[in-house]
Amino acid sequence: MGDETEIVRHIVKATTLKDIAEQTGYTVNTVSRALKNKSDISEATRTLIQQKAQELGYIGNTMASSLRSGMTRTIAVIVADVSNPHFSIAVKEIESAARKHDYTTFILNSYEDQDLEEKAIISALSKNVDGIIICPSQGGGQNIAFLQRTGTPFVLLGRRLDNDDVMDYVVSDDEKGGYLAAMHLLELGHRDILFLNAHHSISSSRERLAGYKHAMEEMGVPIRNELIREISTISGGVRNELKEIMESKLPFTAIFAFNDMMAWEAIFTLNKHHIRVPENISVVGFDNIQSRMFIPFPLTSVSNSKGKTSRKAFEILMKRIHKQNTELRYHEVVDTRLVIRESTRALPE
Amino acid sequence: MGDETEIVRHIVKATTLKDIAEQTGYTVNTVSRALKNKSDISEATRTLIQQKAQELGYIGNTMASSLRSGMTRTIAVIVADVSNPHFSIAVKEIESAARKHDYTTFILNSYEDQDLEEKAIISALSKNVDGIIICPSQGGGQNIAFLQRTGTPFVLLGRRLDNDDVMDYVVSDDEKGGYLAAMHLLELGHRDILFLNAHHSISSSRERLAGYKHAMEEMGVPIRNELIREISTISGGVRNELKEIMESKLPFTAIFAFNDMMAWEAIFTLNKHHIRVPENISVVGFDNIQSRMFIPFPLTSVSNSKGKTSRKAFEILMKRIHKQNTELRYHEVVDTRLVIRESTRALPE
Repeated sequence: MGDETEIVRHIVKATTLKDIAEQTGYTVNTVSRALKNKSDISEATRTLIQQKAQELGYIGNTMASSLRSGMTRTIAVIVADVSNPHFSIAVKEIESAARKHDYTTFILNSYEDQDLEEKAIISALSKNVDGIIICPSQGGGQNIAFLQRTGTPFVLLGRRLDNDDVMDYVVSDDEKGGYLAAMHLLELGHRDILFLNAHHSISSSRERLAGYKHAMEEMGVPIRNELIREISTISGGVRNELKEIMESKLPFTAIFAFNDMMAWEAIFTLNKHHIRVPENISVVGFDNIQSRMFIPFPLTSVSNSKGKTSRKAFEILMKRIHKQNTELRYHEVVDTRLVIRESTRALPE
Repeated sequence: MGDETEIVRHIVKATTLKDIAEQTGYTVNTVSRALKNKSDISEATRTLIQQKAQELGYIGNTMASSLRSGMTRTIAVIVADVSNPHFSIAVKEIESAARKHDYTTFILNSYEDQDLEEKAIISALSKNVDGIIICPSQGGGQNIAFLQRTGTPFVLLGRRLDNDDVMDYVVSDDEKGGYLAAMHLLELGHRDILFLNAHHSISSSRERLAGYKHAMEEMGVPIRNELIREISTISGGVRNELKEIMESKLPFTAIFAFNDMMAWEAIFTLNKHHIRVPENISVVGFDNIQSRMFIPFPLTSVSNSKGKTSRKAFEILMKRIHKQNTELRYHEVVDTRLVIRESTRALPE
C-alpha cells in the first residue's frame, strides 16, 4: 500500500470541503451547499465561503465527483498536426460538441510519427480520459491495436485501418472526392493532371487515388504513374517535389493536391517560378478550408464536411463511453462535394 | 478513506507488473527487468513478457513512476484558438522543446472566453500536469490569479497582465512591432491608416496601438480615433467591421491588422468588393505566419519570433517545475521586426 498512499496524497492534495469548513467555521454540509449556490444558505455566507474556496485554490466538484464515478468528463483528440487548419477545425467542432455534454477536450499532436502517437495515447490513458478520438498516423495500426486492448472507448476519425471491422470510424467519401476533383479538371480539358498525393499507408490517400483513376478511366485518359507522386504532408514536401518535377520538364497543366495546405504550397512554389494559377496551371485542393478561414486565394477544393464528421465521431464516442449499442460497430462515410472557385480554368484549345 | 480507496482503485486499475508476472509465471522482478529490456533476461523471455504486457494493455512505467514522484511529465498549453496558425505554431514549438525533456504537451483552447478558460485551467489541474503555459484570454486576469493561488507552476505567453510583476511572462516587443508597421506605411506615403486592432483588454493590443501612435506622432500625422477600431479576433469580425467602414465612406489607403488572420480576412473582404491589394490598398499584418506556412499571398507582416518566445516560455516553466531561481521573476520581451512582402506599396503622389 506504500505507493498507493503516496498516490492518494498526490491526487487529493487539492483543497477539500473539510479544509474550507475548518477555515470558515461552517459545517462541511453548509460549505458544500454554499458552493453549489443553494438558496437555503444566506447570500453573505455563500459569498464568504466561495471567497475562501477560491482563496484556497479549491478546484471544484468536478474532479472529486469524477474520481468517485470513475468518469473524468474529459476526452483526448489525437491528430497529426493542429497547425493544419483541417485538423484544427475538426478539433474545434469536437470541442464544441463535447462542451454541450460538459466534456473538456485535450488535444495531442502525433506528427504522423508512430512513436509520438504511442506517447500521445499513453499520456491520454495515464490521464484517465473517458475516451479518445484519433486520426491514426501514417504507417500502420499497431498503436491503435494497443489502444483497443486497453479497453478505452475510441473512434477513428478521417482514416480507416485494414482491420477496422472491429472498430468505429467516421471518414469522408474520399474516393468520391478524388473522382470529383479529377473529373472537374478533365472536363476543363486537362489531361496531364499531376496528383500530389500523401503516403499510401493513409487510407484517404489510397481512396482519393482510386477516385482519380476512376475518373481518368471513365474519360479514356491513360493513367501515367510519373504523374502520381507520394509526398510528405509536412510543410516543405511539396516545394521540393515540385521543383524536381519542373526541372525534369515533365509536362502537366493541372495539379490535384491531397489537401489545401499542399495546394497552397504548390501555388506558392509555382508563383516563385513565375507560373500563375489559374492562367498557366489549374489547381484543386481537398478539405475546403476556405469555408472556415478567410484565405485571400480562391482555391477550388473538395469539401469533406468537417462539422458533420467531427460531430458524428463525438456522438459515437459518447455511445461507447455510456456503453450503448455495444453490439454495433459504426462505420460512417460522410459525403464529399466539389466547391469550384477561381484556381481552375479551361485548358485553351 | 472510503473515497480515497476508490480513487486508488480507479487510478491503478491499469495492468500491474504483478498481473503480468501471474499470467506468465515469472517473478515481478523478472517481468520488470524484461520490460526494461535488461540483457540478463533471455531474449525469448523478454519477448514473451513484452508481448503479454502489450496484450494486457500495460501502459508502461511512465505513469507508475510519475505517480510515485508526484511528477507526471506532462504540461498543458492553454491558448485562445489553435485554428489561428499563430497559436498552433507556438504550440508546435513548445511541444518540440518539451519532447526533448521527455514531456508530453496537452493543448486546450479558451476561445477568449473567461468561463472556458477557467474550465481549461481546472481540467489541466485535475489531470495533475506539472505546469501550464497560458496565453491569458481577453477580459481580465481572475483566472490567472486563481491559477496562481493553486501553486501550480505557470508562465504567461504572449500577453501580460496588470499585476504581473509577481508572475513570469514571455511576450513580443509589441510596441516596437506596432511602430514598425505604421512607420513602414507612413514612409510609403500613407496617412489614412486604418488600424484593425483587437480588444484593449489584451496587452498586445494596447502596446501595438502605442507603437502605431508613436509612429504617427513622429511623422507629424494627426491621430484620428475613427481610424482605430477594436474588433473581435474571431473569424468574421473583420469582414463585418470593414463592410461598415466602406459603407460609411470613411477614406483610408492602408490597413494595419492586429494579426495575419485578420489581415487575410481584410484582403478577402476588399477583393469581394473589387478592391485590390496592394494596387488600391496596402495591408500589413502581424505574426509573420508565412514564415512557417506556404500561403499563396505575399503579406507584409511583423515577425514576433514564435520559436524563440515559445522556447523561452518552456525553459522558464522547467525552472519553476524544478524550483530553480525561485527568488527571480522572468519578464522576457522578445524583439520584433518587419518582413516586407508584396501587400504594401507607395501611395501614388
